[in-house]
Amino acid sequence: MRVMGVDPGLTRCGIALVESGRGRTVTALDVDVVRTPSDMELAERLLAIYTSACHWLDVHQPDVVAIERVFAQNQVSTAMGTAQAGGVIALAASQRDIPVRFHTPSEVKAAVTGSGRADKSQVTAMVTRILGMQTKPRPADAADALALAICHCWRGPMMERMAAAQKQADAAAARHRARVAQAREGSRA
Amino acid sequence: MRVMGVDPGLTRCGIALVESGRGRTVTALDVDVVRTPSDMELAERLLAIYTSACHWLDVHQPDVVAIERVFAQNQVSTAMGTAQAGGVIALAASQRDIPVRFHTPSEVKAAVTGSGRADKSQVTAMVTRILGMQTKPRPADAADALALAICHCWRGPMMERMAAAQKQADAAAARHRARVAQAREGSRA
Repeated sequence: MRVMGVDPGLTRCGIALVESGRGRTVTALDVDVVRTPSDMELAERLLAIYTSACHWLDVHQPDVVAIERVFAQNQVSTAMGTAQAGGVIALAASQRDIPVRFHTPSEVKAAVTGSGRADKSQVTAMVTRILGMQTKPRPADAADALALAICHCWRGPMMERMAAAQKQADAAAARHRARVAQAREGSRA
Repeated sequence: MRVMGVDPGLTRCGIALVESGRGRTVTALDVDVVRTPSDMELAERLLAIYTSACHWLDVHQPDVVAIERVFAQNQVSTAMGTAQAGGVIALAASQRDIPVRFHTPSEVKAAVTGSGRADKSQVTAMVTRILGMQTKPRPADAADALALAICHCWRGPMMERMAAAQKQADAAAARHRARVAQAREGSRA
């Protein structure tokens, strides 16, 4: 499975491509940071990020795009721009029928370091080790995008199985309700 | 000037088209609310909103798109989705070289009612009166999109003049600094 991990942001947007193999084997295929100047207009910054994302998606054709879920509580001043950067990348994936999944920062930290409260340097160190890289990925946004992709490689398949099981359970419940309603109709007639 | 006003949102996104004439004359040309179901995946909801916005832009060819500026402080749970909906519409405009401007909710309220703290019903009542409509625009998102467009019709030209004046002032300051630097070089030589 090829996963494109995205650490969204207007000023720096980390994008990484990771391939999962057997068990917990993961291989980094590419990583980059898209930058837009802060004096550029918001709509143009979003267009630049969207264009880069489209290029990545067309060149690498990932099976799934994993984006960090942004919360309004953290860093209020930049949260809106971060959400919008993630939004235009999700749009680019959706236009290509590529599924988009979201993971929270603590889910990502927990997946790669074992602790949801790990700091940036711990995440970078673990990403470097997991991927067997010679040097630490820089800047932090590149490491975060790699961590996102690794997190999805490991959590994604389980998430999909749980979603499928939930769907089956919902369908079974709907069938049951239909049978009960039918039986009631029958007893009334 | 044709202004497309946008009250962004995932569940309901208000879009309006208003034309400004002489003085403060404004005419509503069209208004609609784009809805996406809350059980749809985020990326697909953004795609649906983006597609509607592209259609509007291509059909109506506005001179400018005015979008409500979203703040993280208000309604934390929906702020991210709202920002993303506004983001993909800004992207659609940027792809067509149509300028995008943002106004805060209080700027919009102040423009149409005279008070930045007006409530929804006051905004709707003033929008109905200003545009000379027979019935109140419904739902509130439609009225808000119209209010955004009216606000830009009235504030936009002044904003552009101020931005142009600021640019001139910056250029003059840069020229002055260059002359001072040159004079210093001259006195040193």
